[in-house]
This record gives sequence, structure tokens and C-alpha cells, in this order.
Amino acid sequence: MTQPDLAVSTVIFALRGTSSENMVLSLPLVRRIRSPFEGTWALPGGPLGDEEDLAQAAGRNLRDTTGLEPRYLEQLYAFGQPDRSPDNRVVSIVYWALVGGDEFAATFDDENVQWFDADDLPTLAFDHALIVEYALWRLRNKLEYSRLAHGFLEPTFTLAQLRKVYEAVLKRRLDPGNFRRTVEASGQVVPTGERLAGTNHRPPQLYRFNTAQGLIDPDPLTIRTALTHPGVAS
Amino acid sequence: MTQPDLAVSTVIFALRGTSSENMVLSLPLVRRIRSPFEGTWALPGGPLGDEEDLAQAAGRNLRDTTGLEPRYLEQLYAFGQPDRSPDNRVVSIVYWALVGGDEFAATFDDENVQWFDADDLPTLAFDHALIVEYALWRLRNKLEYSRLAHGFLEPTFTLAQLRKVYEAVLKRRLDPGNFRRTVEASGQVVPTGERLAGTNHRPPQLYRFNTAQGLIDPDPLTIRTALTHPGVAS
Repeated sequence: MTQPDLAVSTVIFALRGTSSENMVLSLPLVRRIRSPFEGTWALPGGPLGDEEDLAQAAGRNLRDTTGLEPRYLEQLYAFGQPDRSPDNRVVSIVYWALVGGDEFAATFDDENVQWFDADDLPTLAFDHALIVEYALWRLRNKLEYSRLAHGFLEPTFTLAQLRKVYEAVLKRRLDPGNFRRTVEASGQVVPTGERLAGTNHRPPQLYRFNTAQGLIDPDPLTIRTALTHPGVAS
Repeated sequence: MTQPDLAVSTVIFALRGTSSENMVLSLPLVRRIRSPFEGTWALPGGPLGDEEDLAQAAGRNLRDTTGLEPRYLEQLYAFGQPDRSPDNRVVSIVYWALVGGDEFAATFDDENVQWFDADDLPTLAFDHALIVEYALWRLRNKLEYSRLAHGFLEPTFTLAQLRKVYEAVLKRRLDPGNFRRTVEASGQVVPTGERLAGTNHRPPQLYRFNTAQGLIDPDPLTIRTALTHPGVAS
């Protein structure tokens, strides 16, 4: 048996837009500058460094592509179909990440890196279209049963701001009253007792995520902590 | 950067015992016959075959170790800490599987393969203790929100049989009344209209899993089906 090459790639999500009313779930792609698929857009990625673990390689990927730090980073899946790369066998271990949309002023300039609407992508190299589809599914699914949305928000936020994040990620309008009841019943957020600073007569309450509630699917290296100290897993 | 070696390993779970009252969650380990960790127990695994995808390699693993077919097989995680193997760098893509406990008469004889109580394992090679701990967490967690238990049962079963499976996997007694109400409310099982054959005056009802309810976390290759035909993912 021939040892396949190993690559680490990262699907990076951000909400981008000029206001909370027009946020678009977006991801950065890299134009390939060599064969195969030269000139085609692809997920950022590359080989694993000698001293790095897999998550570190994914984080480096993300910083090299966007100049940003991940707010959330999770292993997505390992892809290893024999024919996924035309020249040599490559197994890709893929991570997905959230980065903050407010940090885009700092995005550095690279003509071979471009942000796209996650639901309106160009033709992608290799099986990267399948990978993005799966990452989108994971993001949307996980948003509904975890406090994942914190990766898109400031530490404190109003329920309207939280709802806008959900609407942008899920790409559908949500009823404000139902949303409020569902979120409050879930225990995922807790009121801070503060209100949004502003000119309103009665400004909306600020909330924060309930960090006593663990995320489902922590990674294996945090499991021991989660098992011995339930509720402190992040 | 040096390309690491790639291995595929499988954590295989079964419920073993002479009756439904004393089932023990068990897994097979393989005694290593070469360095490093010669003589130490380890998860079954090995390199990826040239024509195989990752799940096929994991299934081959499982058959070679136990002589059994998987009833459930899912990718668990890729482990890639730089120091997890002392001699060369190895990245392991790990699957976990369920096999049926009633098939053990057919288990073939290999002095270097032995079944252990999943909660009472010997010292394991590499980081395999961490891997098993994570697989156990995934199994126990997933049992509670999916119809995973079907991997341990016949196609039709009584609620008492289902509860015995939960008790053996979770390692705790469950109140029969609460269990019945929780399971019935979840919609995970549906009555078949048949009753268990036997001598009882009023034999218990038989149920089957509701295949219209998809498992959470299908793999990426089944996602397209799940998205276009909700409810038929398996």
C-alpha cells in the first residue's frame, strides 16, 4: 500500500455586511496557482507541519488566508475517497471555523483570496463543494442545539441581534416572539441585567451565553474536563 | 515538512453476555506483535488500502479482527498530536462501530484478539485510552438522541429489551415507567401491532425503530440524500 498524502483544510465562516439587516454568511476561497485545478477556487489548506497538531494546522491556515483569529474551530470530517484528487492520493482532514464579521477592516489584501456568499459559490476544485455543503449543514444544525452563535456576536447582545445572526445563517425569517420564547426556554442565554446603551425610552435587555451549558460534541481533548467537571466544557 | 503516516483504526462495541440481564458493553483489542508497544493491547487498525475509502478500511479492520459485519459504522475523529507515536509521526483516522452480540458464536479464534469490558480495559498503546474514552462518550451521548440502539437489537423488540440495552450501555438502572414514557414521546419507536411469542397470558408488544426519523450526524456522503429527501437518511 502506498501512503497517501495528508492535507488539512479549513472551511471558514463569517457573517459579512454593512449592517445587521443585510448580513450574508460568507467564506473565503483561495485561487489555486498550480495543477491540478489551476485557476479554480478551493478551500484554504496544505500539509501538516512537523510540530503542529491538526487543529494548529487548521488555525495557521485560517490566519494565513484571512489574517484573522478563529472564534470557534472544530474538526469537521476526514475525506478520503480514492479518486478525490486526480494525480496523487490525498486524504484531507477538514476543520470548520467561525471568525468575526466586525474584524474585516483588518483583512489583508491578497488577489488570490476572495470572500463568497456561502450559498452562491463558484465551481470548486476537488470535492470541495461537497465539503462546504457538509460544513454548512453542520453549522446550521449545530446553531439550533448549541451556543455556537456566540462566535458571531459580542460577549453581550440583545435577543434581536441574536435573531439576526440566526436569520443570516439559516437564511430565513424567524418570528420575533417565537424566537424569544424558544431561546429563553432553552436556557442558552441569560440576562446580564444591563440594557443596550442608546437613545430609546426603553432600550432592550442585554444577554450573554450561559457558559454553564456545555457545547454538544466537544473535542476528545476536552472530554476529560467535561466528564470530571460537568458544565465547564466550552 | 515530512508527510506523516496515515492509519485507520476502529473502536468496535458489542453487548456481550449470556442473557439480557447481564449484558456487558465490550470491545475487542489486538495485542501488538511489534515495536513500539510490543505486547501491549491496542485498537485494531492499519494503513489505508490503495483502492479503499476510509470507511471501507475501517470495515475491513472490523471483519479482520472479529469476523463480524458492522451494524453501524461512523467516523469518530482524526487524531494527530505530534508525539502520539514514539518512532514516526502517525495520524489516525478513527471509526467506531456496533456489532451484534448474538453473533459471537461465529467469532473466530485468534490468540492476539481478546474482548474486554469497555469500562475495565488494560493499559493501551499510544493514545488509544483517550480514543476509547471519547468513543464511549460519543456512544452514550448519541444513544440518548438517536435511534442508535437498533445496532444492538433485532428488527423488532419489546420496550423491556430496549431498556436493557440502554442500561448496559449507560451502566445504570432506568425506571421502566419513565423509560417507556420517554421513548414513546420521542417518536423513535413505533408499535408493530405484534406481540412477543411466548407463554404469557398477555405477552408484551413488539416495536421497531421509526426509520422516518433520521439519525443526527449522518456522514457527508449521505447529506445530499438527507437534504433532498428529509427523513430517509439512515
